[in-house]
Amino acid sequence: MTNRAAVLVDLRTVVLEDRPEPEMGPRDVVVAVRSVGVCGSDVHYYREGRIGDFVVEAPLILGHEAAGVVVAAGELVTRLGVGQRVTIEPGVPDGTCVQCQAGRYNLCPEVRFLATPPVDGAFIERISVPEAFAHPVPDLLSDDAAALIEPLSVAVAACRVAAVGLGSSVLVTGAGPIGVLVAQVASCAGARRVLITDPDPDRRQRATRLTGAEVWSPDELPAKLAVDAFIECSGSSSAVTAGLHALAPASRAVLVGMGAASVELPVGLIQRKELIVTGTFRYANTYPLAIALAASGRIDLDLLVDRAFGLAEVGAALDAGTSDRSVMKAIVRVQT
Amino acid sequence: MTNRAAVLVDLRTVVLEDRPEPEMGPRDVVVAVRSVGVCGSDVHYYREGRIGDFVVEAPLILGHEAAGVVVAAGELVTRLGVGQRVTIEPGVPDGTCVQCQAGRYNLCPEVRFLATPPVDGAFIERISVPEAFAHPVPDLLSDDAAALIEPLSVAVAACRVAAVGLGSSVLVTGAGPIGVLVAQVASCAGARRVLITDPDPDRRQRATRLTGAEVWSPDELPAKLAVDAFIECSGSSSAVTAGLHALAPASRAVLVGMGAASVELPVGLIQRKELIVTGTFRYANTYPLAIALAASGRIDLDLLVDRAFGLAEVGAALDAGTSDRSVMKAIVRVQT
Amino acid sequence: MTNRAAVLVDLRTVVLEDRPEPEMGPRDVVVAVRSVGVCGSDVHYYREGRIGDFVVEAPLILGHEAAGVVVAAGELVTRLGVGQRVTIEPGVPDGTCVQCQAGRYNLCPEVRFLATPPVDGAFIERISVPEAFAHPVPDLLSDDAAALIEPLSVAVAACRVAAVGLGSSVLVTGAGPIGVLVAQVASCAGARRVLITDPDPDRRQRATRLTGAEVWSPDELPAKLAVDAFIECSGSSSAVTAGLHALAPASRAVLVGMGAASVELPVGLIQRKELIVTGTFRYANTYPLAIALAASGRIDLDLLVDRAFGLAEVGAALDAGTSDRSVMKAIVRVQT
Amino acid sequence: MTNRAAVLVDLRTVVLEDRPEPEMGPRDVVVAVRSVGVCGSDVHYYREGRIGDFVVEAPLILGHEAAGVVVAAGELVTRLGVGQRVTIEPGVPDGTCVQCQAGRYNLCPEVRFLATPPVDGAFIERISVPEAFAHPVPDLLSDDAAALIEPLSVAVAACRVAAVGLGSSVLVTGAGPIGVLVAQVASCAGARRVLITDPDPDRRQRATRLTGAEVWSPDELPAKLAVDAFIECSGSSSAVTAGLHALAPASRAVLVGMGAASVELPVGLIQRKELIVTGTFRYANTYPLAIALAASGRIDLDLLVDRAFGLAEVGAALDAGTSDRSVMKAIVRVQT
Repeated sequence: MTNRAAVLVDLRTVVLEDRPEPEMGPRDVVVAVRSVGVCGSDVHYYREGRIGDFVVEAPLILGHEAAGVVVAAGELVTRLGVGQRVTIEPGVPDGTCVQCQAGRYNLCPEVRFLATPPVDGAFIERISVPEAFAHPVPDLLSDDAAALIEPLSVAVAACRVAAVGLGSSVLVTGAGPIGVLVAQVASCAGARRVLITDPDPDRRQRATRLTGAEVWSPDELPAKLAVDAFIECSGSSSAVTAGLHALAPASRAVLVGMGAASVELPVGLIQRKELIVTGTFRYANTYPLAIALAASGRIDLDLLVDRAFGLAEVGAALDAGTSDRSVMKAIVRVQT
Repeated sequence: MTNRAAVLVDLRTVVLEDRPEPEMGPRDVVVAVRSVGVCGSDVHYYREGRIGDFVVEAPLILGHEAAGVVVAAGELVTRLGVGQRVTIEPGVPDGTCVQCQAGRYNLCPEVRFLATPPVDGAFIERISVPEAFAHPVPDLLSDDAAALIEPLSVAVAACRVAAVGLGSSVLVTGAGPIGVLVAQVASCAGARRVLITDPDPDRRQRATRLTGAEVWSPDELPAKLAVDAFIECSGSSSAVTAGLHALAPASRAVLVGMGAASVELPVGLIQRKELIVTGTFRYANTYPLAIALAASGRIDLDLLVDRAFGLAEVGAALDAGTSDRSVMKAIVRVQT
Repeated sequence: MTNRAAVLVDLRTVVLEDRPEPEMGPRDVVVAVRSVGVCGSDVHYYREGRIGDFVVEAPLILGHEAAGVVVAAGELVTRLGVGQRVTIEPGVPDGTCVQCQAGRYNLCPEVRFLATPPVDGAFIERISVPEAFAHPVPDLLSDDAAALIEPLSVAVAACRVAAVGLGSSVLVTGAGPIGVLVAQVASCAGARRVLITDPDPDRRQRATRLTGAEVWSPDELPAKLAVDAFIECSGSSSAVTAGLHALAPASRAVLVGMGAASVELPVGLIQRKELIVTGTFRYANTYPLAIALAASGRIDLDLLVDRAFGLAEVGAALDAGTSDRSVMKAIVRVQT
Repeated sequence: MTNRAAVLVDLRTVVLEDRPEPEMGPRDVVVAVRSVGVCGSDVHYYREGRIGDFVVEAPLILGHEAAGVVVAAGELVTRLGVGQRVTIEPGVPDGTCVQCQAGRYNLCPEVRFLATPPVDGAFIERISVPEAFAHPVPDLLSDDAAALIEPLSVAVAACRVAAVGLGSSVLVTGAGPIGVLVAQVASCAGARRVLITDPDPDRRQRATRLTGAEVWSPDELPAKLAVDAFIECSGSSSAVTAGLHALAPASRAVLVGMGAASVELPVGLIQRKELIVTGTFRYANTYPLAIALAASGRIDLDLLVDRAFGLAEVGAALDAGTSDRSVMKAIVRVQT
């Protein structure tokens, strides 16, 4: 039995290789991967070979938004059986450090995260995952939707850190997949008013269709907003500044989008209004909630998918993410 | 009976004037002012005529760190009587807006704050104060110490927002009066390790004497710190950046010192470590705690005072603050 | 012009009297009362003459769930004008005590609350209210709905204290007006699962109709629940115990319903699971949110109303609340 | 090499047995146990054979307050080496369940806790411990003090849950080891006022000597207290009630002492004052802080120890805990 993988061997060069069967520890399951979402970070590694301090130095399998079905289970696995459909939480922490024990396992310095060098990702037929990081999904979720629990987790974490809740007003900058999901999660959490900005008219149009939010061009955003939460999902420095000015006193800004390493921030404003500025790094303790949200039908993840590729087409999928801003979310269906 | 006041009538020009007796509402007390601390903001108005958007447009009485004795009480006053020594909380909010009702009365948009234009301050013999903002002080606190409950409140608010508590490690940048008080409050709150930085050797020496903290030149601060809280009290942009790099994951930076309106911040770091960056604007609900701290003897406010002036010498007091960085805290003793 | 009031002059005896025009301070408005909900506490005073330590010792006007229209405004009123429809927040705190300044004005020891002896309530044609406690309501809310913002505030406070949010599972015991509103608010806040229990089949049927919750007889509640929040709205001691056993570790019980002064609680369970048990006393900072929820159409307060009376029929309205458990919410329409 | 253990083989019957060398996994260390504190729960198992649902059904080694020195380390151990003195955190959770991942590993349903049936404890010469649960201690801590980091952790957890901090006023009921340590931790955390009650005059005298707290007979506790935190450490039902009445509005009660499974609580009071009542179950994330506190000299754990026994005298040590209320803390020195 082969275990074919799409491997990044050079900048913008992906080849199919056969890899060994994954090693399965006693608390691991082997998952036959079905759907894998293409993320901006995959595209970035594909095009640039690095993201900040993370550098691709050897052939690397990309892909970390992944779902599939359990095909083997270690002897100490108790919650999962063969045939169970699962979505894969891609970051596995050491479980014992200070951050892990405090419930912030996303900040574990020893975390191994799929498709972050040197850890291989999920553009492969079969992968081994610790049971605790393979979350069962109900039948009513498609494989694609199961894969997109990962970006939905990002959105859940952002809304949680932003303290979005009943009656909140929320400004979201950036109408890519994360921005759209944040807006949807905010609505599910009882937000009274959700605004999204994006400079791209196509993205605005899609955001209007996918969410119930008010959608604005950044230039035309109403002045004198006083929102309770600002969630930055574009990585644009100017969006950060604009969002901070839109906040009510004692409210929160959460920086999710990856952009410049340093940005000039209005610290006088932060002080005068006692604004709280923070960021999220991936997520912790979000998967069960994200699965429940998708399963409830309140957030339809399949609507995000506008392109699908086979495992042999991973290069094309990454090219699509590179060149075609009109693609919201490309999916690689590994078994095809 | 005169009511002499030291009035800022032009840049760097203070004159004594006789002002009318203060109006006392039914819930107000009239306080005979005894000691008033000179704050950096007083010096700033004296030298520049403005702080940010706050502009001195008419003669203004400065001074907002004030204590004295009650000499008259309105008919509905229940907690204070004539002869009661009090420290004056200088910001009186409207008490009914959203911020006030939520317990954040320091953010009340209608707050009237002593010595912030156009509201006159406390370099005057008698002043009217709502009962709720005149806090009784025990006899064992000197008048000077009672006045300095105000900067101690700033420090209490900063430590509270920074979540300093049992076992915390805390970095304080800036060894002026606020920085020193923050370090002292942090120790009282059970901090395990407190570090202060200041570029000025004299200030470092004084900080060493006044606090049990480790005192460092900014250039020599140990690398690889991972403190739980960073409290910026210098207003220096480079201190902000240095402090953020010294924080442990998921920990807090509180910007207290007033400096540049905008500062370039390492947002990538904020995201990667999920740092929480915020600021404090004055304080709310701090006076009783600050008084108790000073009364307990654990923080000796009198040790901060190194110069004293009479009401006729307010100009000299402000000049001292301007020219003489070796002055930690000048006090105006109004009745002399 | 008369100012007719329905006055409780003896147990179960209400008479119409003409009262003086209300005194209006400079920050007050006079409200022509339109709709007033009948609350269990009104019925209790009517039947028993007391609730705990609160004893009716003189003729008392009942009614505290009230809405109307502004007919006069004091000289310092800035946010309201004549003709503005408002809902009345019935508890006016002193605004300056420790609890008020901390944002917990519902715990103000000096609070004056409508229809709590010796403070008269709202079964009267015109009443004076501080501007800050007369909240504007949009035209699309009926007078009855505007009055019922008060019990909706109770529900909002309960859900807030219970930390109900996105993905929560919530058990509500008691399907009276408060229980039903709590279930509705929980759903609006993103709760994933809401269960209501009530021993009365009619109430269960109505709860099923009014909410999307699972409705259970207490005897048939599923065993092995592990909900995130338990909100007790019946005042029944057995419901308290049952609810605590239904909680997941580290989750919250909020006691809203008034019942026995003392209840035997499973403290061993509270310790073993680190449950958090608390209660709510009225509410603070809820009105704007409750109005927004009702105005959004997500909670239809008019559906709660099943009986209406005129001001001359207040005794009958209170008798209905006494004798007829099938009445969910009786309203007194004062101008009729 | 023998591995002698003191084994509870029947009620009040402890015998020395030689046990196999402990199994050491790749991430475990083997600790040569030196000091083990005798806890009330050990005494309870010794006398009654059970605590609630935990029943001793087979020979059991008691003792869970333990410290020693590393004598062997698994191949994947990175932070500890042979010769390192450590204190043992006795509860090892599964590390992957919902509670563990949320940072509440003390609530892990799969936790294995030393000396809780059927898990053997530390009255044995050598024991295997996962590296993450063997915490290094500095040389200046004695072996006895290192063992007593465990009850100090209980106290740290209690103060944390009670939100004791700068300026708090705290009532502690029960002057046993936990009550005394809670009072000491509260002082270290900046509490302004700490009161302890105990009906036993000897315990009161010792509490006075060991802490700076006010010490009261329960009968003579001042009326009209309004403390910010109440920490119950006696297990007495009447103490629970008395403490709740001593709380200020919106403040917290933390039930630490084990007593009756059910207690009649004043729920009307809990509601009216919005009190927060909760309990602690052991602790999580406390060891580094407790070690730092002891190492700082601010809490002298050696002062608690008033009796010492050898491994062959474990029965006598448990008898002392049974019969002699004047013993504060007995220690078993295993290597003697």
